[in-house]
Amino acid sequence: MGKGEETRQAILDEALALSSQVGICGLSVGALADKAGMSKSGLFAHFGSKEEMQIAVIRESQQRFVDTVVRPALKEPRGIARLRAFLANWMDWTRRARLPGGCPLNAAANEFDDQPGPVRDAVAAGLADGRRMLANSVRMAVEAGELRPDTDIDQFVFEFTGIVLVAMQNMRLFREKDASRRALDAFERLVRDYATERGNSKKE
Amino acid sequence: MGKGEETRQAILDEALALSSQVGICGLSVGALADKAGMSKSGLFAHFGSKEEMQIAVIRESQQRFVDTVVRPALKEPRGIARLRAFLANWMDWTRRARLPGGCPLNAAANEFDDQPGPVRDAVAAGLADGRRMLANSVRMAVEAGELRPDTDIDQFVFEFTGIVLVAMQNMRLFREKDASRRALDAFERLVRDYATERGNSKKE
Repeated sequence: MGKGEETRQAILDEALALSSQVGICGLSVGALADKAGMSKSGLFAHFGSKEEMQIAVIRESQQRFVDTVVRPALKEPRGIARLRAFLANWMDWTRRARLPGGCPLNAAANEFDDQPGPVRDAVAAGLADGRRMLANSVRMAVEAGELRPDTDIDQFVFEFTGIVLVAMQNMRLFREKDASRRALDAFERLVRDYATERGNSKKE
Repeated sequence: MGKGEETRQAILDEALALSSQVGICGLSVGALADKAGMSKSGLFAHFGSKEEMQIAVIRESQQRFVDTVVRPALKEPRGIARLRAFLANWMDWTRRARLPGGCPLNAAANEFDDQPGPVRDAVAAGLADGRRMLANSVRMAVEAGELRPDTDIDQFVFEFTGIVLVAMQNMRLFREKDASRRALDAFERLVRDYATERGNSKKE
């Protein structure tokens, strides 16, 4: 990395941590410049506009999600075990990705869902991408004969995502200690309903 | 209502519509004064501070949720039918409550989960209240003999809430047309797993 690249990455790290706590709409250029120990104009030399910075934060979150949730899950064998790893990694990802205030993408989804433009597009694309990767792993579980051949993959992804969203909300807003355990219980019930006999026999 | 009360309510209506679209953190006093056709100082005569206004918006959202989701559901007989009405009303509530940009409480949950203080407390209390009302209806479905006596009520509420959250995200961010249908399908699967024979025989 060149010096410019390094500085850009350092700003992005601060921006990610900050937006994890106050949301991407609360990400003011002034506060970020303070945190990064730079002037506002120094910051704008790396990101042309607030919007550009917001999009960079979204893309970086997405990359970290792939690195901490998706990639490690792909090391598990295709099938239910991989889906379970997906969920377990997801429950823990903001801690491991050093995002103390939770998933910036998920927060941004709520902030920007009614504000058409490139930031909203980047959020939607980022979340759709995560779901696509999950859908692939569900499809493989069907192909591996562990989930029933008539599994509605989009419905499975829908229900799986619901489990993740409520667990995140309970962890973050209610500091609920057993949110992860509840999420895994919900996952096992989901899988039990969709699994073949073979899939169920391979359960933990 | 006195004149002061009327004005306060009119400002609150504008504040609710605005925060439904841009979030409670995006609710600037300037933008709201413009919308309400008042000066900033006129606005502060009704709400002492931005924070006080945010809390008023949260309480008002909560009241509308009770009026459009909970109360109509309570007209259904105790049991699974009432839970199904809860979900159906929930899917449609922001439209019926004239909140064009979605649920302000849910958006605020993401914005404020890491910002300790009275706004966060009001959001958490509001969401906890909704869940408590749902839990009561689940408990009654157990007492009515339609859900199994060993039903883990908190787990049921957890999974039900997950279905709501993902449906909301899909509707708002992806404009997914069949999100309501998917939510109802997920609900029927949830109920099938927890229902007694009697409960299942009463299904639609």
